[in-house]
Amino acid sequence: MGNTFGKIFRITTFGESHGNGVGVVIDGVKPNFKLSLKQIQYELNRRKPNQSNITTSRNETDEFEILSGVLNNETLGTPICVIVKNKDAKSSDYKNLETIFRPSHGEFSYFKKYGIVDFRGGGRSSARETIGRVIAGAIAKQILSKKKIEIIAHTKQVGNIIAKTFSKNEIEKNFLRCGDSVVAKKMEKKILQLKSIEDSIGGVVECIVQNFPSGIGEPVFDKLESELAKAMLSIPAVKGFEIGSGFNCALMKGSEHNDEFYFEKKTNKIKTKTNFAGGVLGGISTGEEIIFRVAVKPPSSIAMKQKTVNKFGENVDIKILGRHDACICPRVVPVVEAMCAITLLDLIFQNETIK
Amino acid sequence: MGNTFGKIFRITTFGESHGNGVGVVIDGVKPNFKLSLKQIQYELNRRKPNQSNITTSRNETDEFEILSGVLNNETLGTPICVIVKNKDAKSSDYKNLETIFRPSHGEFSYFKKYGIVDFRGGGRSSARETIGRVIAGAIAKQILSKKKIEIIAHTKQVGNIIAKTFSKNEIEKNFLRCGDSVVAKKMEKKILQLKSIEDSIGGVVECIVQNFPSGIGEPVFDKLESELAKAMLSIPAVKGFEIGSGFNCALMKGSEHNDEFYFEKKTNKIKTKTNFAGGVLGGISTGEEIIFRVAVKPPSSIAMKQKTVNKFGENVDIKILGRHDACICPRVVPVVEAMCAITLLDLIFQNETIK
Amino acid sequence: MGNTFGKIFRITTFGESHGNGVGVVIDGVKPNFKLSLKQIQYELNRRKPNQSNITTSRNETDEFEILSGVLNNETLGTPICVIVKNKDAKSSDYKNLETIFRPSHGEFSYFKKYGIVDFRGGGRSSARETIGRVIAGAIAKQILSKKKIEIIAHTKQVGNIIAKTFSKNEIEKNFLRCGDSVVAKKMEKKILQLKSIEDSIGGVVECIVQNFPSGIGEPVFDKLESELAKAMLSIPAVKGFEIGSGFNCALMKGSEHNDEFYFEKKTNKIKTKTNFAGGVLGGISTGEEIIFRVAVKPPSSIAMKQKTVNKFGENVDIKILGRHDACICPRVVPVVEAMCAITLLDLIFQNETIK
Amino acid sequence: MGNTFGKIFRITTFGESHGNGVGVVIDGVKPNFKLSLKQIQYELNRRKPNQSNITTSRNETDEFEILSGVLNNETLGTPICVIVKNKDAKSSDYKNLETIFRPSHGEFSYFKKYGIVDFRGGGRSSARETIGRVIAGAIAKQILSKKKIEIIAHTKQVGNIIAKTFSKNEIEKNFLRCGDSVVAKKMEKKILQLKSIEDSIGGVVECIVQNFPSGIGEPVFDKLESELAKAMLSIPAVKGFEIGSGFNCALMKGSEHNDEFYFEKKTNKIKTKTNFAGGVLGGISTGEEIIFRVAVKPPSSIAMKQKTVNKFGENVDIKILGRHDACICPRVVPVVEAMCAITLLDLIFQNETIK
Repeated sequence: MGNTFGKIFRITTFGESHGNGVGVVIDGVKPNFKLSLKQIQYELNRRKPNQSNITTSRNETDEFEILSGVLNNETLGTPICVIVKNKDAKSSDYKNLETIFRPSHGEFSYFKKYGIVDFRGGGRSSARETIGRVIAGAIAKQILSKKKIEIIAHTKQVGNIIAKTFSKNEIEKNFLRCGDSVVAKKMEKKILQLKSIEDSIGGVVECIVQNFPSGIGEPVFDKLESELAKAMLSIPAVKGFEIGSGFNCALMKGSEHNDEFYFEKKTNKIKTKTNFAGGVLGGISTGEEIIFRVAVKPPSSIAMKQKTVNKFGENVDIKILGRHDACICPRVVPVVEAMCAITLLDLIFQNETIK
Repeated sequence: MGNTFGKIFRITTFGESHGNGVGVVIDGVKPNFKLSLKQIQYELNRRKPNQSNITTSRNETDEFEILSGVLNNETLGTPICVIVKNKDAKSSDYKNLETIFRPSHGEFSYFKKYGIVDFRGGGRSSARETIGRVIAGAIAKQILSKKKIEIIAHTKQVGNIIAKTFSKNEIEKNFLRCGDSVVAKKMEKKILQLKSIEDSIGGVVECIVQNFPSGIGEPVFDKLESELAKAMLSIPAVKGFEIGSGFNCALMKGSEHNDEFYFEKKTNKIKTKTNFAGGVLGGISTGEEIIFRVAVKPPSSIAMKQKTVNKFGENVDIKILGRHDACICPRVVPVVEAMCAITLLDLIFQNETIK
Repeated sequence: MGNTFGKIFRITTFGESHGNGVGVVIDGVKPNFKLSLKQIQYELNRRKPNQSNITTSRNETDEFEILSGVLNNETLGTPICVIVKNKDAKSSDYKNLETIFRPSHGEFSYFKKYGIVDFRGGGRSSARETIGRVIAGAIAKQILSKKKIEIIAHTKQVGNIIAKTFSKNEIEKNFLRCGDSVVAKKMEKKILQLKSIEDSIGGVVECIVQNFPSGIGEPVFDKLESELAKAMLSIPAVKGFEIGSGFNCALMKGSEHNDEFYFEKKTNKIKTKTNFAGGVLGGISTGEEIIFRVAVKPPSSIAMKQKTVNKFGENVDIKILGRHDACICPRVVPVVEAMCAITLLDLIFQNETIK
Repeated sequence: MGNTFGKIFRITTFGESHGNGVGVVIDGVKPNFKLSLKQIQYELNRRKPNQSNITTSRNETDEFEILSGVLNNETLGTPICVIVKNKDAKSSDYKNLETIFRPSHGEFSYFKKYGIVDFRGGGRSSARETIGRVIAGAIAKQILSKKKIEIIAHTKQVGNIIAKTFSKNEIEKNFLRCGDSVVAKKMEKKILQLKSIEDSIGGVVECIVQNFPSGIGEPVFDKLESELAKAMLSIPAVKGFEIGSGFNCALMKGSEHNDEFYFEKKTNKIKTKTNFAGGVLGGISTGEEIIFRVAVKPPSSIAMKQKTVNKFGENVDIKILGRHDACICPRVVPVVEAMCAITLLDLIFQNETIK
């Protein structure tokens, strides 16, 4: 029963990896908004498989169909349902997995919970579910964009390789979606090397939100950072979330960590000299840049032989067929942006009710 | 509008630091449960101020009154309202703060959002709000305890001092609530030293959940780790959340990070050799120990003189009066346990609906 | 788990009839609203027992205490908790009811559900629970009043006696809260006659909302009339809800029932000549007067001897002690207004998110 | 934002009358339930247009496609999305309605709310939206049926013609879905007569729930009757809801209205001699039959010439083209059953959380 996210701009996703299709229903979209369908497809393309040599070679065009809520590309204020049919599903690759549990894969816990699993392609636990999120996020981004709010995620780290510089314009120029093209090359090399030995690698994705207004967030439980944390941890493969100083704050003194307020004459605004807060105080945005990071685990579906057990509790070896990513960061980037956009837009809408 | 948490075991907190009182309404408690009021007071005492030389000296006994939902200490299945009246509020300490923004404090963003703030003691953004959480958590813990589920949080790190060993029984024996009493001494020394120079320090609190059943968590948005992340980031001063391997997963290869399944004969269960997953896969519990950490920032209310601005945008110096903690970790420990208990119990209740 | 109502202006009530107290937490109130505490007490007085010879003689002053969310009578935007302590509870009157089920009283079904009931005074199923609703409603009414929206309920019918005229100013001038003072006299006589023979009588309460804007309501499930219907059927003793033509529509032809649109020059608005719709079309307000009625059953707690069974399935006679109303309509009137105000204000707030 | 219904068994509908399609996402379905697709189609056929001479002649086969949540007809516990593509949409019939408001039709209020309307076929306000409800209801009914719970709705009244007898088996034997075949003939004659003069007529649909367990319903707001009332008033054309005695209770004395408890030896249960309560007390089911009625207005889309205004406030005449029902009761019957099933199943699931 946990397939809905948001209170006002509210999305419900559905679909299994190898079922008839995946998609999303979006409720709470304002009427009279002119949608760019091209932008939706652009975001889906950023998420889709087989973009490069470091991603899975499953071949899906991920073309979407809008069933409702839109007339002549304009929103009606009614729920928007968008679907993507599944096409290149090679269910035969998963034949041997019906009784064997892949190490560190959600099938085990899904089986424990539901007693039934669509093992084909990971079923509901497949990252293919994120298509619905990316579609909804693409719409949210368009609405935020009208308010000049921009959301930019990028691969910050792969293994022990960390981006040294950050240039927004570099992100889409390399397979890694890294803001540092030089370091991106090293990351790519690292990933390909691990792929060649049938292994995979983790990383960190960072997200920056620019021009975000102050006053957004709903204490004491639906704080801006609480909702973002929930959104991020709901993305497959994410093991951690931190905002502003994050875990580094443990090492800091109050006198260092406190962001000094000052008055900026040209904008007529109160600003802070540093931003260890990451753009939030007490669960509410300050007007500074929002900045957060998520930890992305190495893909569990690796080709090398592994030990595991089957449903009957017997020790077995497993060789995972199917087409998998050696590092998921580049494909997590658009999903982080999507979930961030959905979360922030919902909070903006919530805030409108107290004006 | 964000003062309610949970879907079935659902809490709503209310109250400002220096208002008439704080408290909580808990809906969704099962009927016929015998409550230990002593356990509730015990948890409140762990949270309350003036426990030691490293915490604030505000003197509140934090005695609670149950207004509803309980008859002869037994739950009725109706909403339980519990209140704590505010007593030792020195509002005069906050007189000078009505127009001056304390650096890195929620008052600034509250003012930006609401246009009005109860500045006395931080108002709603005060950690005093967590009293309601601790009460609800104390009830949740009692219910979980009947299912043999135990939740233990402890101070893992203060500044660069990290606990080396972990013994459950040590936690309540030192002011730090650290599982390593030797290291706890060093932490305490560090904190007192910073307090003496009117500064403060951050830290890390870790939480372990034992005997938690498999199959709990509601993909794809209300995953166990998503709900925990939200719960933790809703606690004042928390800047980050990680589960299992956490941010360290970025450095790991799939072949390292994958937790190998094996069949344990004596328990007749499928277990994993390692637990980098931290007890969750695909948003659902695996039956392994749940383990997560939160980053706790250094308290922003430090006594030393700081630069800031007032409401009128003028540069001013500030000396923060009032009674504040130099390191909040020991008092965050019971709040982490409370929010963890509330979150997990709610997810257990949600899971009962698919049985 | 059903003790919360509303999405944005959201109330949670708590309390049993003879417990420590009853009350409400209201979340989603806009900040900076100047509350009239007098108005709150006025509404509580309209609901309270022992107002006249036709209502119960339980003697409660129903004085309220605000615990949070308000500073100098001004709303902070944080949750407002208001409590009323129970004082004149004669629990001894209910001693004999611990094992005997009162005919047509909620205790039976509460016992079936929860396996435990606070039998004293009806516990949670007591109409005393509506105190929380009336408090929240009094606040909602003040906010609506600023928008010129007025909500007026009145006793339309008692037994077969139906009000013939309607004058707003008459309502508070008679014990019945009837808009027709002449008929009110007859109603009162009828009720006293039934009371004298230890019986009770049902009735109909009508509610009119004036100056309500068009465009409010959230199809397709949270329609204005759906939310009102839910709100009304949640009031103790209510057995039916109808809006506009209501059940009479069954007898009507489309050509009669259709409300003809016309353009009104002086207001520059499209109006309708009739209002069989009752102010809503397709779940959204039209701008016409909202008008609805609720059916109120005769109080089940009558003094005359009745046959029933006890917990052990034995046939027993029952004489109900305690102090009860012979007709509940006059006290339902303020509760209908309160729930109407809460419902409409919440829908107005919801509508603000699409602007 | 009001397109979702239910807390645990939760449905979200989408779609406009002449858009690409309509449908539903159902979350909270238990896993491992074997679905009968035939039953779903059967219910859709009961709702669909062009069943008889008294319903619209729009020709839709209403064949559904399941996109997700089901594997080999078995539920996975994941969200089930079912869609129906729109085929026989004659949008040209609505060309003249883009600027003219049909009397008593939702387009006016939709336009007031959203500022944009898909006028073709009524857009979102079309009864075609109920397809999603009927699909979800068909699934809910199957699950309830396994618990021996049966839901039967029937046309009780058309104009002033009221069914005198009730036989479950007669319902599907006449176009009216009336339990009295003799009276059904008279109803049909009445409707055809009104159709011949381009008019329409209202009615009453009654619903009976058999074998429903006691203890279901969530006071104080989500009472069984509150949720049913909301569900029923959310159905297009419904103007009233009453349960048990309903509005007739206004005429009754407590001594008449009280349902006397007695102990039934053969079932070992406490029963009531009468059932004016309609199966609920205090918002919780008693174990008696649940019985309620809804008032259904005459269809507003009548062919005869009517006066109205256009968007520009000009007086105009209107002749409504398109294919419309002269009495909607027979097609409301399956929708009432569907919404009743969805509501009751959700409350049953909610109740499981307190066991």
